[in-house]
Amino acid sequence: MRPMSADEFTDALRGLSHRYWGTHPFHHRMHAGELSQPELQVWAANRWYYQSAIPRKDAAIISNCPLPEVRRQWLPRIVYHDGATPGEGGMERWLRLCEAVGLSREEVLDERHVAPGARFAVDAYVGFARTKPWVEAVASGLTEMFSGHLMKARVADMLAQYEWISPDDLAYFTNRIDAVAGEGQATLDLVIEHSRTRAEQDAAIAALSFKCDVLWSLLDAIERAASKK
Amino acid sequence: MRPMSADEFTDALRGLSHRYWGTHPFHHRMHAGELSQPELQVWAANRWYYQSAIPRKDAAIISNCPLPEVRRQWLPRIVYHDGATPGEGGMERWLRLCEAVGLSREEVLDERHVAPGARFAVDAYVGFARTKPWVEAVASGLTEMFSGHLMKARVADMLAQYEWISPDDLAYFTNRIDAVAGEGQATLDLVIEHSRTRAEQDAAIAALSFKCDVLWSLLDAIERAASKK
Repeated sequence: MRPMSADEFTDALRGLSHRYWGTHPFHHRMHAGELSQPELQVWAANRWYYQSAIPRKDAAIISNCPLPEVRRQWLPRIVYHDGATPGEGGMERWLRLCEAVGLSREEVLDERHVAPGARFAVDAYVGFARTKPWVEAVASGLTEMFSGHLMKARVADMLAQYEWISPDDLAYFTNRIDAVAGEGQATLDLVIEHSRTRAEQDAAIAALSFKCDVLWSLLDAIERAASKK
Repeated sequence: MRPMSADEFTDALRGLSHRYWGTHPFHHRMHAGELSQPELQVWAANRWYYQSAIPRKDAAIISNCPLPEVRRQWLPRIVYHDGATPGEGGMERWLRLCEAVGLSREEVLDERHVAPGARFAVDAYVGFARTKPWVEAVASGLTEMFSGHLMKARVADMLAQYEWISPDDLAYFTNRIDAVAGEGQATLDLVIEHSRTRAEQDAAIAALSFKCDVLWSLLDAIERAASKK
C-alpha cells in the first residue's frame, strides 16, 4: 500500500474525533450542570491520577527517542506539567481544582479515591508510551487536536452551571487551552514527518484510537464510581 | 538486618571506587600517551554511543519516578547533554572531541565504528534505568563520585601527551568536571534519602556495582576493537 498524502493522513487522524471523550455521557452531564459536588469530587480525584501520569508518559517518549531535536522539542511538556519550581505547573493547577470541589490535597495525593478502572486505563497509557515506538506514543497524544474546543466549552459551562466554581478554579483549563493551541499543530507535524510508510501511518492512527479508548475508559470508571455517591 | 547509617552507606558506595574504570589498562595507556590516533578514534566513536544514550537513560529515570520534586531535580541532566538548542550540550562537546581525533561527524553518528560489546554494555545500562526502580537507576549514576578525579587527570595527561589535542578539544571533560562536582553530592543525598531499608541500600550498592561493570565492559570492547588498528 502506498503511503497516504499528508492531507489524507491528517484527515484520517482528525476523523477519530467522534471517539474523543467530549461526547461521553458523563461529560454531557457535567456541562449541563447535572453533577453533584460529590460526583465532581470523584471526577477530579480520578482525573488527578491521569494528570499525575502525564510527565512520566512524556519522559518515556523522550527515553525512547534517539533524535536529540525531538527530545528538545518534547522536554518542555514535562516542565509544563511538573512546573519549573514547586507550586507551579499543570499538575498544581489540577490540584487547585480538586480543592475547589472540596477535596483536601492529602486525599487526592494518596489516591484513595482512584477507581481500579481509572488506574488501569492510565497505566495502560504510560505502558504504551514506554513500550511502543516514540512516534506512536507521540501520535497517541493527538487527542490534543480535539481538546481545545471541549475545554473552552467546559470553562464556559462550568462557570455558568456551578456557581461555587470561580474562574481561578479553572486555571488548569484556561492555561491548557492556550498550550494545546500551540502544541497541536507541532505534534501533528512531528507525526506526519516521522510516519512515512503506510504501516507507520496506520500505527499512528491506531495509537490515537487507543488513546481515545484510554480516555473513554477512564471516564467510564469515573462515571461508575460517581454513581455510588 | 538494620539499615546502615548514612555514613556507613556512603562508605559502602565509595568503597566501589576500585571497580571504576579509572584503573582500566586502556585508560592507563591513554593517560601515558601510548595510544595511536586510530586507537583514540575507536575510543571516541564507541564512547559516543555511551554519551548519546545518557539523555535516554535520564528520561527513563524521570519516567519511572512518581515524585515531581525528584523529576524537577533530574530534568536539567537531559538539557545538559542534549543542549537547550542545537549545537550545544555535552553530546555536542563529545562530537567535537571526535572531530579532533580525526573522525567525521557522519561516521560517528551512523555508529559504524561501534563494537557489539560496547553497544550491549550501553544498552544494558539504558535497560537497567528503564526497568529498575528509579532510585536504583539514580544510584547507578554515582560513578560520578569517582569521575571528577579521573577527568582532571585526563585533561592534564592528554594535553601533555598528545600534542595535536588542544584544550578546546577537551571541552567535554573540562565542562563535565564542574558539573559532576555539583551533581555528585546532590545525587548521593537523593540515594541516601530514598534508600531507607537495608534491602534498598543493598540494591543501590548493587546498582553502582553494575554501572562499574557497564563502564569496564564498554572499555574492554573498545580495547579489543582498538587492538585491531
